Amino acid sequence: MSAVKLEEFRERIRKELDTTVDFWLQHSHDPLHGGFFTCLGRDGEVYDELKYVWLQGRQVWMYCRLYRTMDRFHRPEILEAAKAGGAFLRRFTRVPGAGSGQWKCAFSLTRDGKAVKIQRTIFSECFYILAMDELSRVTGDKDMQLEAEQMMEQLISWVREDPAGLGRPQLPGDVPTNSMAVPMMLLCLVQQLTEGGGTEVVQKYTELASWCVQQILQHIQRSGTAILENVSVDGTELPGCQGRLQNPGHALEAGWFLLQVSAQQKDEALQRTAIDKFMELPYQNGWDKEHGGLFYFLDVDGHCPTQLEWNMKLWWPHCEALIAFLMAYSHTREPALLHRFSEVFEYTFKHFPDAQKGEWFGYLTQEGKVALDFKGGPFKGFFHVPRCLYMCERILDDMLANKD
Amino acid sequence: MSAVKLEEFRERIRKELDTTVDFWLQHSHDPLHGGFFTCLGRDGEVYDELKYVWLQGRQVWMYCRLYRTMDRFHRPEILEAAKAGGAFLRRFTRVPGAGSGQWKCAFSLTRDGKAVKIQRTIFSECFYILAMDELSRVTGDKDMQLEAEQMMEQLISWVREDPAGLGRPQLPGDVPTNSMAVPMMLLCLVQQLTEGGGTEVVQKYTELASWCVQQILQHIQRSGTAILENVSVDGTELPGCQGRLQNPGHALEAGWFLLQVSAQQKDEALQRTAIDKFMELPYQNGWDKEHGGLFYFLDVDGHCPTQLEWNMKLWWPHCEALIAFLMAYSHTREPALLHRFSEVFEYTFKHFPDAQKGEWFGYLTQEGKVALDFKGGPFKGFFHVPRCLYMCERILDDMLANKD
Repeated sequence: MSAVKLEEFRERIRKELDTTVDFWLQHSHDPLHGGFFTCLGRDGEVYDELKYVWLQGRQVWMYCRLYRTMDRFHRPEILEAAKAGGAFLRRFTRVPGAGSGQWKCAFSLTRDGKAVKIQRTIFSECFYILAMDELSRVTGDKDMQLEAEQMMEQLISWVREDPAGLGRPQLPGDVPTNSMAVPMMLLCLVQQLTEGGGTEVVQKYTELASWCVQQILQHIQRSGTAILENVSVDGTELPGCQGRLQNPGHALEAGWFLLQVSAQQKDEALQRTAIDKFMELPYQNGWDKEHGGLFYFLDVDGHCPTQLEWNMKLWWPHCEALIAFLMAYSHTREPALLHRFSEVFEYTFKHFPDAQKGEWFGYLTQEGKVALDFKGGPFKGFFHVPRCLYMCERILDDMLANKD
Repeated sequence: MSAVKLEEFRERIRKELDTTVDFWLQHSHDPLHGGFFTCLGRDGEVYDELKYVWLQGRQVWMYCRLYRTMDRFHRPEILEAAKAGGAFLRRFTRVPGAGSGQWKCAFSLTRDGKAVKIQRTIFSECFYILAMDELSRVTGDKDMQLEAEQMMEQLISWVREDPAGLGRPQLPGDVPTNSMAVPMMLLCLVQQLTEGGGTEVVQKYTELASWCVQQILQHIQRSGTAILENVSVDGTELPGCQGRLQNPGHALEAGWFLLQVSAQQKDEALQRTAIDKFMELPYQNGWDKEHGGLFYFLDVDGHCPTQLEWNMKLWWPHCEALIAFLMAYSHTREPALLHRFSEVFEYTFKHFPDAQKGEWFGYLTQEGKVALDFKGGPFKGFFHVPRCLYMCERILDDMLANKD
């Protein structure tokens, strides 16, 4: 494909990123209490005032990242919004945890910051760390960065030593599992905390990064023909639906995480694995040959998944696929990978963006019809769309700047 | 409509009940450990061995009810299966709870009975009570009945006095709510425990039954124009999505629960409320004018619900609608109610039963296409289909025996 085609992609992506940023700047800020409304209807109207911590943290991170690394977003209103979101998070998110002297992050808060729900998982904490570290890079607040690192230590101890602080009762039938989300999140945090850092901080997390990569690679199953979402801690297949579950979008996201590591470590074998196993397989197994788009969940043996939404087309797997295939192409220049990107791009840009009101729909039926028409909800905030567009734009910038 | 039409309904219903009972007798029994497999694929194959306590309890109840009250199901294999299921439940379901000296019922168990998950709600306990009481009626086991009553006391104390034993942390933003499922379940249990009982047992639960009815009636909102699924403990509307949520199938189920109470108490006002508010409103608000069938969730202000499955057509709301409208017709003989029954019957029997392999599909797209093709899953067992067919057959029997 020609540079002209790459420029076309970039033009469309850049326009879409601007639209998305404008949408959230315009509709999501809470001037009264700080933080962000994330339940935004099709026109941007706030249909619920609950504040979801995953999405608060992600929006702070994304604003800072755009402000810090892209000239056209280095704007005071973006910085101010990120700071206000960070202050809200810091003031209200932490609540006493189940472990002695430990604390947890709430999952959701009222508009004025009262904790509504706590999940017994690590994810609210992960997005809190992501926000605090990135915000500290913009503001230079060393206390905030220290706080991110301290929470990271607690997180690592929950995952690798003792999960008691998460508050889940230990049950005899609830065997420990390697759920791909956990090493993926930790690897993402390692990338964040070590970015641009010196030898010391990189070395501090080297062993953890290797552990995360190994844990992710354990999800290659069925003699290398499938990525399974949950495996045993020994890396073997688990029984039943849980063990047979495939989440193609999640595997593709793991693919570009691994690809980044392979580039940092100049590890060609890992690069090959990332592309062949974590991109090509989920695409082969997860793309809907009849209607296009990636299924949300699939059972590796072809049983019907028990998740009611299994055959829906969600925005975020398509975002991950775009990043994965474009990054893989930029690393290898294999035309087949650009072709994949192009296929996913075509489906995605045809179905998800709302040409009338801006931003993207998140949830389509199998046939590609909009099933839920809001722009933000409990799990859709200012994150997957802008992260995808931001990363793709930068990859295209780099490729176009270094034309072969 | 003529008696001939009622006979046609009965014939179809009777045939369908026989098919359903055969399906579960053939495929769901675990000869090794007792209890029931509930994850049954389209052909009845077991695709997951986890045992869900809600469904174990419901299957025991349903088997006993059929055995005890319908001649053609008074068969030894049904009794033996119910006993084996009851023994499995009694042996494995109870686990130590969060409250001192209290216990909880697990939500799911491994095939051999190890607890996998505990929910911080009352529902596993409810279905355990339902099973134990009904089984004790068949076997005459007084210990078992006592156990059901004791667990009922604990349940009442969780709901009306102190929920700490459920294990949920108290959070400042998590205001207590009246979720319709709770008084509905308690009312259902009162009906079960008092059925055929003497004055003493009826009196024991009279105050609780009235409380349940009042709690359910609080869900009539918006000046009597909508049934909302969650309200405040004072009976006012809650903010946000939670407050605006409508679940038409659930409201219809509440409708026939209230109708039963109104008949027992010869309360004509309650009968009118049950029909006008809990049947007609959910039908008006919840029936899909374009494709037919009842939506799963709706927002009373017309926002898009955040539940991904909101526009799917599930089997159980249609089961509840069939019971509700037929019971309402049998109590009032208003032709409009038989007409409603007939409409729901037509949609239901056209879309849900699997003519090839028997039993019903559970989950259709908005357009009525099968979206998940299994016959049993984590939330679909031997309960809503047979309960609906059983109750409708009996109502039709009574009406046809007393022809006007």
